[in-house]
Amino acid sequence: MEKRFKGIFAALTTPFSSGRIAVDKFRENIEKFNQTGLSGYIIMGSTGEAPFVDDEEAEILVREARKTASPEKYIIAGTGRDSAEWTVKLTNRLAEAGAQAALIKPPYYYKSRMNYSALKAYYSEVADRVKIPVIMYNIPQNTQVWLPLELVVELSEHQNIIGLKESGGSLAYLSEVCSKVPADFHYFTGSASILYSALDMGACGAILALANVASEHCVKLYDLFIAGKKEEAKELQYKLIPLNRALTETYGIPAIKYALDRRGFYGGPCRIPLLPLDEKAKIEINNYLTELNLIK
Amino acid sequence: MEKRFKGIFAALTTPFSSGRIAVDKFRENIEKFNQTGLSGYIIMGSTGEAPFVDDEEAEILVREARKTASPEKYIIAGTGRDSAEWTVKLTNRLAEAGAQAALIKPPYYYKSRMNYSALKAYYSEVADRVKIPVIMYNIPQNTQVWLPLELVVELSEHQNIIGLKESGGSLAYLSEVCSKVPADFHYFTGSASILYSALDMGACGAILALANVASEHCVKLYDLFIAGKKEEAKELQYKLIPLNRALTETYGIPAIKYALDRRGFYGGPCRIPLLPLDEKAKIEINNYLTELNLIK
Amino acid sequence: MEKRFKGIFAALTTPFSSGRIAVDKFRENIEKFNQTGLSGYIIMGSTGEAPFVDDEEAEILVREARKTASPEKYIIAGTGRDSAEWTVKLTNRLAEAGAQAALIKPPYYYKSRMNYSALKAYYSEVADRVKIPVIMYNIPQNTQVWLPLELVVELSEHQNIIGLKESGGSLAYLSEVCSKVPADFHYFTGSASILYSALDMGACGAILALANVASEHCVKLYDLFIAGKKEEAKELQYKLIPLNRALTETYGIPAIKYALDRRGFYGGPCRIPLLPLDEKAKIEINNYLTELNLIK
Amino acid sequence: MEKRFKGIFAALTTPFSSGRIAVDKFRENIEKFNQTGLSGYIIMGSTGEAPFVDDEEAEILVREARKTASPEKYIIAGTGRDSAEWTVKLTNRLAEAGAQAALIKPPYYYKSRMNYSALKAYYSEVADRVKIPVIMYNIPQNTQVWLPLELVVELSEHQNIIGLKESGGSLAYLSEVCSKVPADFHYFTGSASILYSALDMGACGAILALANVASEHCVKLYDLFIAGKKEEAKELQYKLIPLNRALTETYGIPAIKYALDRRGFYGGPCRIPLLPLDEKAKIEINNYLTELNLIK
Repeated sequence: MEKRFKGIFAALTTPFSSGRIAVDKFRENIEKFNQTGLSGYIIMGSTGEAPFVDDEEAEILVREARKTASPEKYIIAGTGRDSAEWTVKLTNRLAEAGAQAALIKPPYYYKSRMNYSALKAYYSEVADRVKIPVIMYNIPQNTQVWLPLELVVELSEHQNIIGLKESGGSLAYLSEVCSKVPADFHYFTGSASILYSALDMGACGAILALANVASEHCVKLYDLFIAGKKEEAKELQYKLIPLNRALTETYGIPAIKYALDRRGFYGGPCRIPLLPLDEKAKIEINNYLTELNLIK
Repeated sequence: MEKRFKGIFAALTTPFSSGRIAVDKFRENIEKFNQTGLSGYIIMGSTGEAPFVDDEEAEILVREARKTASPEKYIIAGTGRDSAEWTVKLTNRLAEAGAQAALIKPPYYYKSRMNYSALKAYYSEVADRVKIPVIMYNIPQNTQVWLPLELVVELSEHQNIIGLKESGGSLAYLSEVCSKVPADFHYFTGSASILYSALDMGACGAILALANVASEHCVKLYDLFIAGKKEEAKELQYKLIPLNRALTETYGIPAIKYALDRRGFYGGPCRIPLLPLDEKAKIEINNYLTELNLIK
Repeated sequence: MEKRFKGIFAALTTPFSSGRIAVDKFRENIEKFNQTGLSGYIIMGSTGEAPFVDDEEAEILVREARKTASPEKYIIAGTGRDSAEWTVKLTNRLAEAGAQAALIKPPYYYKSRMNYSALKAYYSEVADRVKIPVIMYNIPQNTQVWLPLELVVELSEHQNIIGLKESGGSLAYLSEVCSKVPADFHYFTGSASILYSALDMGACGAILALANVASEHCVKLYDLFIAGKKEEAKELQYKLIPLNRALTETYGIPAIKYALDRRGFYGGPCRIPLLPLDEKAKIEINNYLTELNLIK
Repeated sequence: MEKRFKGIFAALTTPFSSGRIAVDKFRENIEKFNQTGLSGYIIMGSTGEAPFVDDEEAEILVREARKTASPEKYIIAGTGRDSAEWTVKLTNRLAEAGAQAALIKPPYYYKSRMNYSALKAYYSEVADRVKIPVIMYNIPQNTQVWLPLELVVELSEHQNIIGLKESGGSLAYLSEVCSKVPADFHYFTGSASILYSALDMGACGAILALANVASEHCVKLYDLFIAGKKEEAKELQYKLIPLNRALTETYGIPAIKYALDRRGFYGGPCRIPLLPLDEKAKIEINNYLTELNLIK
């Protein structure tokens, strides 16, 4: 069965200037991304500093993204707040603003209570009440909550839950989930470092922070894989890992924004408490960008 | 030097009905608490399901609390969101609505970046820009972030940072902080299970979930301590621990709300994903309430 | 460059009877495994209850294993104790008894001190002083210590450190390590659930708990992969994951021993504190074994 | 009821020279400690690098300690290995060598299995089979295992389990345990930073790393408390915390050994992987020692 969403999605950064959202810069970035082979954009993902952005600002971001994005680019919004009530409210607000699907991380403040039943109640309640399809989001490095495999399989039967983004990087989990969910369920890896194997084991695509900085390489890896050129895809995979690790593990969003600046996009500062890169880190990022021919 | 805030503060629950804030019930609860010896109320604390409540709702809660509370009861609002920008915005909104101080937990989504510098930047920026005094809030069981002791000491010099609530329950940390901060810095313990020793080692008071359910006992322990009746205070301390552990560790907010219902306050349901207590837990809570003469 | 070790190694269980090592059962198990395509045996691995077995008993196990194993089967001993001194002593003792290589987990009791320098000092000191080659061992689920990727790369230059067993299951880590170490460095995955992709990305083999219970399937997957029959290998991979997860995550060594009993090997009890499986778990394991045609 | 053990016990370091146990230095240290008001010595505790020392060496240490210690000083040995079998073997060996009680931490390698039943089975089996009384040992910072409060209460009824050492530093846990165990159960705090309050809430004494370096102050605090001079005890408590934190949290055993050297005892090097202090840390330790008049 053909899946609705596939390919590479970029989890966009949110541009700020003097602490405010820089809407013009946001538009300019998207106009540039419109020229790429990306399948769509995630607004208000973890890379988008979602927990730093309030609901009003989120609405502006999604509205502008929808207006600026090429028609064929999907707009997916991160809409998870900690309660079902708030998440429903924000999701429907962002659906109005143009989001075509919602990427929803689990509640995590009261994490000692986030057992199977609580997570099931949350996702079921949300999915029942929102006007756009739901993609669950596993990102234990930030939430300390792992979505139980059996829960994902169970919720894959819900008619408004269409997929999962998994950023824990577990290929074992991916393989088992993919072998147990319906054919039209979307499994996106959130880890560019395992992209090749994720596609090989059943993912339909990826939602990547790296796709801000190296969208052409991410798309190429996907295209090579789809074209059956697995050895070439694999070669590219190896090359992307050090940069991806630096951006997503070692240094985080400030490094992604710095790399965007270096590549002619607008990166700019993060909101506090995320602090600018130091010089040593900048040199390291520059080296990786140079090795991958992303800057000269 | 006399401290502005002292004694026992209740971290109030937020009443819901059919998923919405039940403002009338909230008022009724506060009217009952006005009859007690509590020094004030925390609105939008961890016990208040703060991450489940949006900014608009938070404003309603604070406004109603201020209107309903006796004039001598302080109103402190939990205002921590994950970015300085959002926290400043919410804090000043709630200050307008009547909050006299802000209780601010650290950002915690990007916890691998929450080092000394990041936390210092966050609290400094917020404290510089908000119109009410800031009380830092250490609650590692929910945030996985410990505010470094040296940071608390350093920030205690900021003229708009007046205190700390510490809910990790570390008496060693309390003792060292209290011996290093200025005399007018407020150290509140958030753990009713160590209240007696916390006061003994230098805390000026406590902000307690237990004070919803057993305000009279919490206030009495404080009063006994202040009156120098240490052995009596200690006896009471031992008695409170099992109930406090059940409410705050074993079962959490659903148990606090259940106990409120049993005591003639309005507890009601939590927002999803927090689920109702099962029967076994209810029996356990009832037993503790009975042992403490809180119900018959 | 040809690697010395490759293929599938079983991390053998240690048979006990009335709390003592059941040497006869141990020999019988090995005699049966001699009939399989396994490349060798790990004695005193995590599956072998190594921390439950003292040095004297370890020597007996290795000596008996070497005597009983077919000459072409390699004997690798888990020899990691918490200090370099003790590890060297045990390693050389087990080398005398017949071990051909040592699998060494990092020290983990003082884990807050186990930084890069400490781990480097430990592995360097050990590797310098032992008479058999060293295979480092990353098993963070038990040790809470991740061997830093850069450390593995640095130590791969040590002439007596010949490889790594990685049981954290990270394919990103595997891919990056494999692209940075010398060609004769051995990377073994310890996770049967990612075996196919691990081989695809550069592992030379695997050291598996699952190979106790399903050695034929593990070996077949490896052989299919080597023969270039990747789709068949992948099909088999999907089938093995649920059993592997049950054995290694959900239930642990008691389940592996139960499954061995069911398959005609000797499993027997674990040492205390590892307790026997309950009935529900036994049924689940039986179902998986049946599905894989491992029992009738 | 009078308790058998009370007062301050030092968790002795193990002196090494060129990687070997320096028995003469060990004796010299004990001879000096014999002049103090310490109640006894712990051999093979966490401060004694117990996981770095094999059983043969442990026997030497205990034998020498018993021979060298004044008759009135108790000798308690850390004897916990990961299985009941090994722990029983080591405990009885060290009992023969002179240990009067055994301090036993929980098994922790297979920590995901260390539930209530497993821990109960372990301690019960061990206590049933050893010839000296057992003191349970909670040290979650090293083991990641918390002994459940209910388990401690349950096992306090076992006739050969006489106490608990608690190094997690939780005063809430202490207070609740002390209110629920028989009067002759020994509760030792392992945290010098909460010593005063621990005694106040029911501990009968303490087993302290700090007592290597500042035995006189630890003993004095205890004596002041017993004499009812609580304010003086409290003043001393505040003074001890910074040094204790530096020794036990910030820098660990290498700092304790460095401080011993500075005070005229033998500290010497740790076994690898514990590395020597750097200069900055030495300066910090020196400052604390000077402030407390422990060096000039």
